Formats: sequence, C-alpha cells, structure tokens
Amino acid sequence: MIKPIVVGIIGAGRIGRLHADNLRVMPCFKLKSIAEAMMSEELLTWAESRGLASVFAEGEDILNDPEIEAVFICTPTDSHASWIGRAARAGKHIFCEKPVSLSSEETSSALQIAEEAGVLLQIGFNRRMDPSFRKLQQLVRSGELGSPHIVKITSRDPQPPGEAYVRSSGGMFMDMTIHDFDMARYLVGAEVAEVYTRGANLVDPMFGRCGDVDTAVITLTFASGAICVIDNSRKAVYGYDQRVEVFGPLGSAAADNCRPTTVEVSTATSVTRDQPEHFFLERYNQAFIDEIAAFARSVRLQEPLICSGRDGQQAQLIAEAARESHLTGLPVKLTAVTGTGARVSEMRTM
Amino acid sequence: MIKPIVVGIIGAGRIGRLHADNLRVMPCFKLKSIAEAMMSEELLTWAESRGLASVFAEGEDILNDPEIEAVFICTPTDSHASWIGRAARAGKHIFCEKPVSLSSEETSSALQIAEEAGVLLQIGFNRRMDPSFRKLQQLVRSGELGSPHIVKITSRDPQPPGEAYVRSSGGMFMDMTIHDFDMARYLVGAEVAEVYTRGANLVDPMFGRCGDVDTAVITLTFASGAICVIDNSRKAVYGYDQRVEVFGPLGSAAADNCRPTTVEVSTATSVTRDQPEHFFLERYNQAFIDEIAAFARSVRLQEPLICSGRDGQQAQLIAEAARESHLTGLPVKLTAVTGTGARVSEMRTM
Amino acid sequence: MIKPIVVGIIGAGRIGRLHADNLRVMPCFKLKSIAEAMMSEELLTWAESRGLASVFAEGEDILNDPEIEAVFICTPTDSHASWIGRAARAGKHIFCEKPVSLSSEETSSALQIAEEAGVLLQIGFNRRMDPSFRKLQQLVRSGELGSPHIVKITSRDPQPPGEAYVRSSGGMFMDMTIHDFDMARYLVGAEVAEVYTRGANLVDPMFGRCGDVDTAVITLTFASGAICVIDNSRKAVYGYDQRVEVFGPLGSAAADNCRPTTVEVSTATSVTRDQPEHFFLERYNQAFIDEIAAFARSVRLQEPLICSGRDGQQAQLIAEAARESHLTGLPVKLTAVTGTGARVSEMRTM
Amino acid sequence: MIKPIVVGIIGAGRIGRLHADNLRVMPCFKLKSIAEAMMSEELLTWAESRGLASVFAEGEDILNDPEIEAVFICTPTDSHASWIGRAARAGKHIFCEKPVSLSSEETSSALQIAEEAGVLLQIGFNRRMDPSFRKLQQLVRSGELGSPHIVKITSRDPQPPGEAYVRSSGGMFMDMTIHDFDMARYLVGAEVAEVYTRGANLVDPMFGRCGDVDTAVITLTFASGAICVIDNSRKAVYGYDQRVEVFGPLGSAAADNCRPTTVEVSTATSVTRDQPEHFFLERYNQAFIDEIAAFARSVRLQEPLICSGRDGQQAQLIAEAARESHLTGLPVKLTAVTGTGARVSEMRTM
Repeated sequence: MIKPIVVGIIGAGRIGRLHADNLRVMPCFKLKSIAEAMMSEELLTWAESRGLASVFAEGEDILNDPEIEAVFICTPTDSHASWIGRAARAGKHIFCEKPVSLSSEETSSALQIAEEAGVLLQIGFNRRMDPSFRKLQQLVRSGELGSPHIVKITSRDPQPPGEAYVRSSGGMFMDMTIHDFDMARYLVGAEVAEVYTRGANLVDPMFGRCGDVDTAVITLTFASGAICVIDNSRKAVYGYDQRVEVFGPLGSAAADNCRPTTVEVSTATSVTRDQPEHFFLERYNQAFIDEIAAFARSVRLQEPLICSGRDGQQAQLIAEAARESHLTGLPVKLTAVTGTGARVSEMRTM
Repeated sequence: MIKPIVVGIIGAGRIGRLHADNLRVMPCFKLKSIAEAMMSEELLTWAESRGLASVFAEGEDILNDPEIEAVFICTPTDSHASWIGRAARAGKHIFCEKPVSLSSEETSSALQIAEEAGVLLQIGFNRRMDPSFRKLQQLVRSGELGSPHIVKITSRDPQPPGEAYVRSSGGMFMDMTIHDFDMARYLVGAEVAEVYTRGANLVDPMFGRCGDVDTAVITLTFASGAICVIDNSRKAVYGYDQRVEVFGPLGSAAADNCRPTTVEVSTATSVTRDQPEHFFLERYNQAFIDEIAAFARSVRLQEPLICSGRDGQQAQLIAEAARESHLTGLPVKLTAVTGTGARVSEMRTM
Repeated sequence: MIKPIVVGIIGAGRIGRLHADNLRVMPCFKLKSIAEAMMSEELLTWAESRGLASVFAEGEDILNDPEIEAVFICTPTDSHASWIGRAARAGKHIFCEKPVSLSSEETSSALQIAEEAGVLLQIGFNRRMDPSFRKLQQLVRSGELGSPHIVKITSRDPQPPGEAYVRSSGGMFMDMTIHDFDMARYLVGAEVAEVYTRGANLVDPMFGRCGDVDTAVITLTFASGAICVIDNSRKAVYGYDQRVEVFGPLGSAAADNCRPTTVEVSTATSVTRDQPEHFFLERYNQAFIDEIAAFARSVRLQEPLICSGRDGQQAQLIAEAARESHLTGLPVKLTAVTGTGARVSEMRTM
Repeated sequence: MIKPIVVGIIGAGRIGRLHADNLRVMPCFKLKSIAEAMMSEELLTWAESRGLASVFAEGEDILNDPEIEAVFICTPTDSHASWIGRAARAGKHIFCEKPVSLSSEETSSALQIAEEAGVLLQIGFNRRMDPSFRKLQQLVRSGELGSPHIVKITSRDPQPPGEAYVRSSGGMFMDMTIHDFDMARYLVGAEVAEVYTRGANLVDPMFGRCGDVDTAVITLTFASGAICVIDNSRKAVYGYDQRVEVFGPLGSAAADNCRPTTVEVSTATSVTRDQPEHFFLERYNQAFIDEIAAFARSVRLQEPLICSGRDGQQAQLIAEAARESHLTGLPVKLTAVTGTGARVSEMRTM
C-alpha cells in the first residue's frame, strides 16, 4: 500500500470534477482542495456533496499549500502552459489535461521549466490506458505483429460541440485529432515524419464559418515507412466510434467499439445490437481512473510516466502540421514544423 | 475424373427437382430420367427446360433401365421403404430422402433387403455436409475438444408448414427434429441411450389439432454420459435458426447462423445486420451438392457412405422415442424402443 | 442525495469483503462495522487498510448497535437462516447472500420472521443486475419478444472448487445452478411447474465421491408452457461461460459473454479474440455494485426489492426438485416439492 | 428463359478457364470455342474434360465465327485494347478483364471503336457483384446513409505475386488497387477529383527492385467533398483481407471479411475463428458468376451494363494519378491526368 499522494485540482469544470470523483475513491490519493476562478453556488454544493472542504478562487492557494504534492491542471487550454510553469516552480508534480497548449513556443517553454524543476509532468492522453488499445500496444511491443506497416485509427464523435467551443478549441486537429496523433505514436513507438490532411466541412456549415473542418482523413508517415491513416468526423449519428487496427508483417490486430450490453435482438424485421458507448465519459471511464493510478505509481514508485510532457508536445506539433497541410493542400514534413528543435521524447512503455 | 454415374430420380416434387438441378451440372453424374406419378403439363415444361427427355409416370420404368446405376428416391415418405426394396432388388444404388419411413418395421425390412442386395443406401441427412457442422465433427474426431460433455443444437424453422403437410409428416420429431437427432449422433459419434422430451403447442393451435407440437426441448443422453439438448420451434420470425455447439473437457466449438451478407448498418436508431439465410434451400445449398458428390465417391471410389441406412434407422428410432416421451411425460430408454435389435451402425467418418 | 444507510457486515470471507469494498465507496452507504467468528491478524490488517475501525468476533455486536440500520449476511450458508431471524428480530433490514439456506423449512421459517418483523430482505442474486441480462428481462417485460417460448441459459464455471467446498455446498444445483433457476424465473416472470435433470460426473471423480455432479442439463417447464433449458459444467477450460437467450413468438434476444478487450488478432496461423472474463468477480463486478445500490433505494426510497426472500425461496425449491429429479431419473413437479405451501412471490420489476 | 448467348473466349489462362467453367453450367450461355496462343497438351486435355471441342491458336478464328455473339477477352493486359478493337469491328459484344490497358491512349482508342461499333463492352470489375458490397452500394443509392462523407476500403492480398508478374503488371496501383478505385467510384457514385498516395516497400525488396511498392495508403477526394481512403498490402499473412465501410451523415455501413465457416473454437489457450477466405477465387467465387449473368442480361434484356468501358477507363486514370502522386510525393488532380478529356461515364445502377 503506497502512502496517499495529497493533491489539489486547478479548474473545476467537467474534466476537473471527473478527476475529483475518481481521486476521492482511490486509496493512493488524498484530494485536499480544488480551485476555480468561476466560483458559484452550484460549485460549492457540488464540493460539499463530495466532502471537499477547501474550494479556492485562486489556483495559487493550492500551489502555496506545502502539504500538496501534486496538482491536476484542468483549466481551459490557453492557461495550461502558464500553470505548468507555476506549479513546477512550486515543486509540485503535475498532471495536465491535453493539449499542453495551443502554441508550440509556450509548450516548449513550459516543458523546459518542468524539466529544470525536476517535477513529473504527465499529459492526459487517457486513451493510452484503454484496455483494448493497451493490448494493441503490447502486441506491437512484443513483436507479435512485426514492425507495423499500416495503422488505422477511426475516431468519430457522436455529436458536434457548440460554436463557442469550436472557436476556442484550436481547431479539430488540435482539439480532437490530437488524441489520435498520440495514439499513432503510442502504437508505432516512433516519430511521425510527414503529415497529409484531407479535411472537409460536411457536417455543419458552422465549422466552416469558424475556419474549421468537421471531417478529415489524415495520413501520417513514419520514418520507418509505417503509414498511419486517421479518419475523423464530428458527428457519427450512431455514437462514439473509436476503433484502431495495427497491421504488420506477422499479423494484424484490431480493437472494436465497446457497447453497453452484448445483447443481440432478432425480430421479423431486423437483427440489432447496441450502439457504441455514447461518448468519452462512458467509453474511457476506466481509462480515466487507470491513467491517474499510473500517475500515482510514477510519483511514488518511480515507474516511467505513461505519457510525458514531451509526448504531449509531439502530438501538438503533429496537429500543427496537420492544419498546415489542410491549409496548403500539400504534405508537410514534421521537421519543418518543429523548428525549435524539440527533442523526440523517449518513448516509454507500461 | 471418375466415370459419370447414370441416375434416375423417382419423385419430381420440390426435393426431387432440387437434386435434378444439382445432378445436371455435376460432371460425376449423368441424369437420365425422372419419374412422377402426378404427371402435369408444368412438370413436362420444367423437364424440357432442363433438357430432360425421359419423364415417366412409373418409377418402375427407371428401375427397369439397365443403364441406370443409381436412383434418387424423392417420393412422399410413406413410399420410401417400398422403393428402397424395389430399387435394391433391381440392383440399383440408392440415395433416399429422410426419414427412411414412418414405421420402424418397414425401415428394418427395407434395410435388410438393401444389405442383402449389396447395394449402397445413403440417407439424405444433408446437414452433415454443412461446412461449419463438418468442422465441428472433425474437431470432435481429432480429439481437440476431448470427448463431448454437452452438445447443444438449436433448430428453428422460419415459418410453419401447412396443415396438410403436418398431418402427413409423422409429427415434428419425425419430420424436423430427426435432422437434429442425426446431427447429435454425427457429432458425438456414439448412440443415444435415453430421450426426454418437453413439447408444447405455442405457435399455432393447428399443431395441437393435428396431435402435434410446434415447440420442444429434447434431452438426449449418450451411454458415454454426454448430454445433448435440442431446442426446436416451427416459427422463428427472424429466419432459419441453425446453430450447434459442442462442449468438451478441452474446449468448446460453436457454429453460428449463416447470413446473406456481412454488412452491419449503424444509424441513429439502431445497429443492424442481416437475418439468417431464409430457409434450408439457402442455408444448405452447398450441402445438398456436397452430399451427392459424396454419394458419387462412395459408388465409384468405395469411400464410406457419409450417412448410411442404419444411420437413418437410428435417427428414426430416436424420433419414435422422443414422441413416446412427449406422450408419457417420462424419459424413454432407447433399447426399449428399438426392440427388434437394430444394430448400431458403424459410425463412418469423412 | 439520499441519507447514507449505516450498515454492518456479518461474515468477512471473500464475499463479505467484496461487499465491504463496494459499500466503502458508495455515498448511499456508511459501513460501520464487520463481524467474523474466525478472527485473524490478516483480517485486522485488511480492516485497517479499509479504515474499518470496528471488527467484532460476534455478529450480535452488530445487531446490538442501534445506529446500524441494515446488515449484510455473508456467513457460510448453513447459518444464513439463523442470522436472518436474529437480524429481523433486531429490526435490521437484511441483505443476505444466496442461497437462503439448505433446508426449505429453515428458509420458510426465516422468511416468516422477516415478514412479521416488517424488515426488508434482499437475496444476493446479483446476476439480475448484469446489464445484458437486465436488458433481456426488459425486452420480455416490454412485450417486444412476446411471451417466452424457450429460454436457454448456459452457465459454466472456469474451474471446479475444492472438495471441502463441494462437500458443504449443498450440491451443484443448490450452489451453482440456483443462480440459473433464479435467472429463469426473473426472465420468464412466472413460476416453474416441473423440473427434469440430466446430471453427470464427467469433469472430476471427486464430485462423484461427494455424491455430486459436475455436468448437467436441466429442463424447467413453466405453467405458461414456456420451456427453459440450463446447461452447466464445473469446468469450462476457456473461462466463465455465461450466456442467456430468450426466444418468443415476436423475436429472440441473446446475451453473449463479456471479454476483457475487444481486440481480435489475425496471424498466419489463427484469428483469436479474448477468452471470456475469468470468473464472477470480473464478469459481475458492476452487478455486485448495482445490487446493493438497488437495496439502498429499496430501504430509502421504498422501491420494490429487486430480489426478495420469496424469490430466494423459490430458487431453493427448484434446486431441491432438480436434485430429486437427478436422483430418481424422473421429472419432478414443483408443487410436490414445495409441500409447505410456499406462496409464489410477487414478481417485482426494476 | 432467355435464348443462350453463343460465346468464345480469347485467352485460356487462369481467368479464362475460370470463366469457361462458369459459362459451361449457366443456361444463358453456350460456350463454343476458346483460343490460346500458347497451345499445350495440358490445355487440350483440360478442354476435353470440359467437352470443349473447338480450341484455336488464333483469337481471330473466334472473331470470324458468325455464330458467336460475344467474346471474353482474357489475354495478358497489353493486348486487351487491341482485342477490344478487333472484336468490336467484328460486331461482337465484349466482356474484357481488368484493366482495360496500361495506356490511357490505347484505352481511349479502344473505347471509341467499341462505341462506334455499337457493341456492349463490360469490364471485369467483379467485386461490384459481391453481395456485401452490392448491399453497401444499394444503401448509398437508397439514401439511407446520406451522401457519403468517408469511404474506407481495405484490400490486402494473402501473398505477393512472383517477380515476373510484378514486372509486367503495370505496378500495384494498376494491377491491384485498380479494383479499389472502381469500388470507390461504384460506392460514391461520382468522380474522383484528387489523389494522394503514400506508398512504401515493406514486404519484399523485390518490389523495390521492380520500381513498385507493396504497401500503400491512398486518399481519394471526390468533388462532393467525400473522402475515400484505401489501404493496400501485397501480403496479409492471415489471408485475403477485403473490407469496405461507408460513412455518411445518416449512418455507416461496413462489410466484413467472409470466412469458410462460422465456427468459433474456445480452448484453454485461445478463442479462434476461421481466417478470411483464402484469395479472390474463393471470396469472389459467386461474384464471378454474377458478373457474367449480368452481362447476359445486358446483351439479351438491354439492362444497363454493371461496369462499362468508361468505368474501366476511369479506374485506369485514377491508377495513373496514384502512381504519379507516389512518384512526386504530391497530391494529383484528376483533370491534370485525364488530359484527353475522357468523359465521365454515366454511373449505372443495378
């Protein structure tokens, strides 16, 4: 039994509260306080129902608490980098939601501060902990499939977000596809060399008005020759479509959608089964728990991070390149984008 | 290339014509003539379209043709035994549709004549040649599953037959379940020791009026201790439900339904796939061809029959016992039924 | 948010601790104390790790605590009935593990005491809360399948228990199949009229030495004409096999096994997917939580019990009849067994 | 019953013989003669076993036979265009194997001759007749899925061809992917506007030595905005992988691989099912029959061709663009390739 890690959460929106509910019941954590700039009666009621006595308006109050060893950064994306820097300087270990930031310079700077401070920084690419995707990764690592030739990632949301969200999201590649970019790197275990994007605005003209796309097929080429293709849509009417396939010289492995039940109903008119789990809260429910359990093991047991700040940075660089490819209509080489010479992060295994 | 076997068909109903169409295009057969007591203009037109010059009103005309080496008996069940005897005495090899007869005495007598005449007699339990069920049988024979502990057979028709058919069918156990009785023996590779039947009249009161059931669960106990359970319905609204599972100490193997396409359609309201193949003509299309190809190999190449007259007799005895169990509400031991000392047929393999 | 129910657990074996771990993290419960006759250092360490201060050697200490509103009876089966009586007299609501007892007289008496005391008594047939089986039950209740004609339940354990367990278990029908008897009643929504059992000792001679079976096919006939068939094995080498199918005049619905991941691996030699979830702790993990959440709603919100003492009694009576059928080789009518006039419990829905 | 069409086959290699075997047993055709430049004893024996009396060394002998109404062109690809021209001038209807030719000029010229001659010209893109892919196409046409947003085609061969074949094949895009290009057009029902290819040589260096690739991901963009992605490999060790998915605003439909049996085997070490049908002869066995049945209906009943010469031309143009994209590393617009102003063929439906 490891000694519980005392944590605070900065940002009490949907994802902050999700982490709070998981932290509360995990014996390896002791959730002490939460901070939220947008204080409300509703938030206080929520906190009380969770037995959370300390609710601050200022994240600094959490950083100033010497008992707190680690912080969860769950604020809007544009303040992630700033909070990483401040938390690192306060000597806290950091769990930060994805993406690290919308600017590669900010990310680069924040990572440097964290590294100099010697604190751990884990990025919330929770899908790495999905049991099916982990199994795919382990199959690749074990060599059972051979070095991947083709990786296929289908990632389609059940419904589009609202316009306000879209305008502040950094665009589909940075907001949504970034999970798939991370998955591609996680599975192949190498870096992306070139990106080609075909994006389209087919779901809702709103995306076009925001300068964004809602449908895309993105081809990633790895230095090894492996080719990864991602297909995205902001609206799959049948539910959250999350499938991955890895094809190599020794075999292929495919992870299918998860469904609430296994029931198949056969009638005079049809044979039906359940639609996929509705959205990420349902599909990745266990992965949200497992990623913070892994964070605890990194903090207490020195296990390697399952997803480092450098992993977050790489995914962000691919997202930037994907956008550039979409805008120019041409393939984009990754080195042309990284510019500042971001090091390729050491790929860590479970 | 084996020398084609010259054949005639006695009985030009649905199943006779089905065999005719298969025989026509198989190089190992030469279909010469067909006989049908109920002559009609429509039959002659059909025969002409198949290039079949010889259409007789009397089956004897086929038996009297010295060029004909083998006959297919496709008449109504109540004349099967009689035709087996006559064909055997005429020295023809015989392919006879199931069941051999509705009377165990008639069957016993017909088999004796065929054996004395030294002609081959194959019974049309075509499901033995279904690729999936054959694979199950081969898995059992190979020992990969160990000696079977439990066998489960689901056999449900898409729609009930008409009342006239039901009245002359010999009852559900003799007409429909008999296929499953043969399948159980085929898979387990041993003889049934006891039968217990739970039958019910739930689909249509017509069956009750005819003294028949339309729904049943039948438990077969083998001397080895293996238990087989069959579930039947005369009406599965979603289509022809034909599934088999064999469970043994080393593993389990299950054959699922076949469907016209593999397409799965996901929409806002449902995830659907195809219903099973409609009925036996579709599901066992290839098995109807493969069973007569096997018959040809038995005739020309001395390969063992895939389903002998004794196999047909055993299935008939089980069907009689199943009916007795239904009527008495008690389990029935097979030896009590066989009475006349029917020999257990040698189980032949592919 | 309902006011937490203060509970104590009597019996700290595997199932008692499982409930303890679930109760601890559910806001609707406050686990106060646990009692275990077999005190040990290991137990105290376990309790400390769970923050459980009160560990008693005597269950009476829990019954004597006026703050405790409900008790969980997790002792060996032979003391269930006694504890139900004592807890009921102490005015505690009761959650009792299955089976209620090994004696129909004891069960009858315990239920009477509980009813007279006016306390709630829920029996731990957790499979009723499995999402897939609940969906089947809801499909039946909604009428979408029509009134069931055939129900098929496959229930096979991954490995046999030890001899000591078998000797005290009450036999396979009372220990293992009893879950399936309850499932049959739950799905059909009516009472069983007749039971026929084919049991065998095929897995391990130990079962035979204990006067028990390890393999069985049991046919249940309902008054409505519906037929249910259960197949059991104490050893399915590929894992915990838990499947249910309901077939009615309007359609059929089937619940398949759950597997840890959805991954399918195709190589040069095979196409494989995961074996089923290992055993009941994995497969019914969520059902164990959901059954006690339902208990909380019955206690606090007067929702009907999902599984009453009378439901437990009925399953026990069927198990006794199944054993009698196995011993006599004959079908057994349920009324002949119930004897004491056990009332058919009102079937309650979710 | 339509009057049989008298046909001759030019080219008696693997595909020519396959068509011969199908033509022989179909009542709508009468196969009269076959021509093969590479005469051999083995060929004559084969022809005799099929009852084929006329075997010519010169295809012209077939074209000169006034009784012959239609010819099947099954020669090596480099002579397809020439034979189309000659057969058209001889007034024969034409069934020609894919691809039409390796040169867009030759194709253009051959099509012009056939159109001027007023003969029918069907190209052998047999996959259009696969029951699962036809169902996908019908779902698109019916509007049930909405106008396609994303189409995904997986097409992987079980083993690579030999070097001699590769050198004369026109390259993977022209030889193998051309089927997928046709499938994309067939499903979307519109023309491709742009092609982007990522090819690699990962399977066998031999492909690289031949200037070819063995692995590729190709992105097709349609004028409608629909995006199609094709992934190819010359070697899928687990068998012939042929899957298609169409995603639209109202839903998604996916066709999976076909397998020889439905059997699933669960043992102590694995849960396995069949690998996909081995290769195109098995998987598209029925489609080869159905495509020539459709040709017969076009000849006799004036039904629209299921795949016209113009369809063949378009697929060839896409293959050329795909190769150009592979060589330049840049997306290629289709109009830039067509050059000669190839008309977009009218998309014909079933």
